[in-house]
Amino acid sequence: MGGDFAPQAVVEGVVDAVKDLDVNIVLVGIESQVREELKKYTYPAEKIEIVHAPEVVGMHESASTPIRRKKESSISVGINLLKEKQYEAFISAGNTGAVVAASTIYLGMLPGVDRPGIGIVIPTLTGFAFLIDAGANTEAKPEHLLQNAQMANVYAREVMGIEEPKVGLLNIGEEAGKGSGFEKETYKLMEEKLPNFIGNIEANEVFTGKGNCIICDGFVGNIVLKVAEGLMESAGKIAKREIVKNPLSMFGALILKFTLKNARKLVDYSEYGGAPLLGVNGLVMISHGRSSPKAIKSAIRATKREIEHNIIEKIIKDVKGNG
Amino acid sequence: MGGDFAPQAVVEGVVDAVKDLDVNIVLVGIESQVREELKKYTYPAEKIEIVHAPEVVGMHESASTPIRRKKESSISVGINLLKEKQYEAFISAGNTGAVVAASTIYLGMLPGVDRPGIGIVIPTLTGFAFLIDAGANTEAKPEHLLQNAQMANVYAREVMGIEEPKVGLLNIGEEAGKGSGFEKETYKLMEEKLPNFIGNIEANEVFTGKGNCIICDGFVGNIVLKVAEGLMESAGKIAKREIVKNPLSMFGALILKFTLKNARKLVDYSEYGGAPLLGVNGLVMISHGRSSPKAIKSAIRATKREIEHNIIEKIIKDVKGNG
Repeated sequence: MGGDFAPQAVVEGVVDAVKDLDVNIVLVGIESQVREELKKYTYPAEKIEIVHAPEVVGMHESASTPIRRKKESSISVGINLLKEKQYEAFISAGNTGAVVAASTIYLGMLPGVDRPGIGIVIPTLTGFAFLIDAGANTEAKPEHLLQNAQMANVYAREVMGIEEPKVGLLNIGEEAGKGSGFEKETYKLMEEKLPNFIGNIEANEVFTGKGNCIICDGFVGNIVLKVAEGLMESAGKIAKREIVKNPLSMFGALILKFTLKNARKLVDYSEYGGAPLLGVNGLVMISHGRSSPKAIKSAIRATKREIEHNIIEKIIKDVKGNG
Repeated sequence: MGGDFAPQAVVEGVVDAVKDLDVNIVLVGIESQVREELKKYTYPAEKIEIVHAPEVVGMHESASTPIRRKKESSISVGINLLKEKQYEAFISAGNTGAVVAASTIYLGMLPGVDRPGIGIVIPTLTGFAFLIDAGANTEAKPEHLLQNAQMANVYAREVMGIEEPKVGLLNIGEEAGKGSGFEKETYKLMEEKLPNFIGNIEANEVFTGKGNCIICDGFVGNIVLKVAEGLMESAGKIAKREIVKNPLSMFGALILKFTLKNARKLVDYSEYGGAPLLGVNGLVMISHGRSSPKAIKSAIRATKREIEHNIIEKIIKDVKGNG
């Protein structure tokens, strides 16, 4: 039921996924609405199951809603079914804060991890980078960033297939000793505990591929992603505004349409589709609230990869080993 | 002597400025080098003066260099001459941290202001916005952000000509109560003390013109500007890479070259050229280290506007009044 285009976009993405990806899906939500939506499609019926959850957590409700007031919401019911191992992973395009809170409370944390972090796969000039935290923990301590770095390292290696990920701290200068006291302390901790720590990464290097794992607190991570999103949108609008003034440049734009699409992919969430919530004891994937069917399908594909790579067990092993 | 292209770019920009802008300039730096550079141009000689400063603060030296080790650097000498009212403003494309530290120590703070803030004028979909702090103070307290907001308000009104500036707090959500404890406290303070506070502004709204003054701490401000800079650069590189693959799209790109330039202006520093350092007792303008002659000239133009609008006296009046 989560996201701006639910249940339509979710159901369409799920139908596509069961046809193409060799997965079984349990849809958790208001049964009548979900069933109505499913009627629009033909698909292998045995691959989609519905579990009724009568309540919906709104996108602007407080993060504690599913654990305090709406225990029959799709978020609450869905995460509890994951806890009971009724399926292997939970995906939501709903209220991010609510998913983080419910996952933390119901699933608990992995040993050696104190706080969850949301990871985002970002396209770069040379491939992909993994940025964590995109907004789960806005009151982070240096040890939380270290734990996120350790988890990111496992994710980049196992799921993204980067043999020796370069892990960097997002900071306002390249040299050690830059940033506030928080960054200085985090730098020292990472230098000591992370064998593949490459030092600070400045924000203008996020998209160049300098680092495979970019570590920051949840406040800063959210700012990075939203600036990128907003800037591409605004630049696109300005370009369009200028282009329509001039028939010749409209012609040029038409020719370039597909080329520019590639540049815009830099911030297109639907390419990857999902942001893993790392640190909780269960596979939880968060999808952008504006998720299209394509983004939902991509999130399912990414989640399947996490399952195949046993990501949770590998995180447990690595974080224990380093900590 | 500051910046990646000094003294060449600085001298060229200054020569252009004295020809076009009705200003007199004092160049502070290694006299022989500056004189050598000036020889390349013809200009009204009475409008440019040189003051010898034998030392240079490197771009990667610590912020305390001009106040501790290099008291004969152009930064030290220049700011002290401003203090002695030998001229009305000081502009530097040099080491930002060093300029901030030397300005704070030598000039002192304005009454009611505890810490300096670097303001940046950002082009938006609807005009310009003023973001503060771009990196002067990375250990900010809520009252520092309030003071920055008050100064930004004066700057937007007096220098940028926005009658009733909308002042917002950069945050990770629109609603009150978003962000970490720091943002919550700052929000409360601003709501209480700033008549034209419009609440939170999310990072994807920075370029839309939702707010005229966007307030954040120096760490976050630096991240915003560098993400924007890096993203446009990376997107440009990807576009170019795709374009050269296909002769037809090269043709399209050629047609669009000027149009796309307008979209890129969103993050082009040389358009405005200078970032005022607000809060210190003197007009100090910081120019990007990569400043071109055009950027230097723009910084001089912006500084002239600040002088004409008596910005310091107006800040003193407003900040006292609100605080």
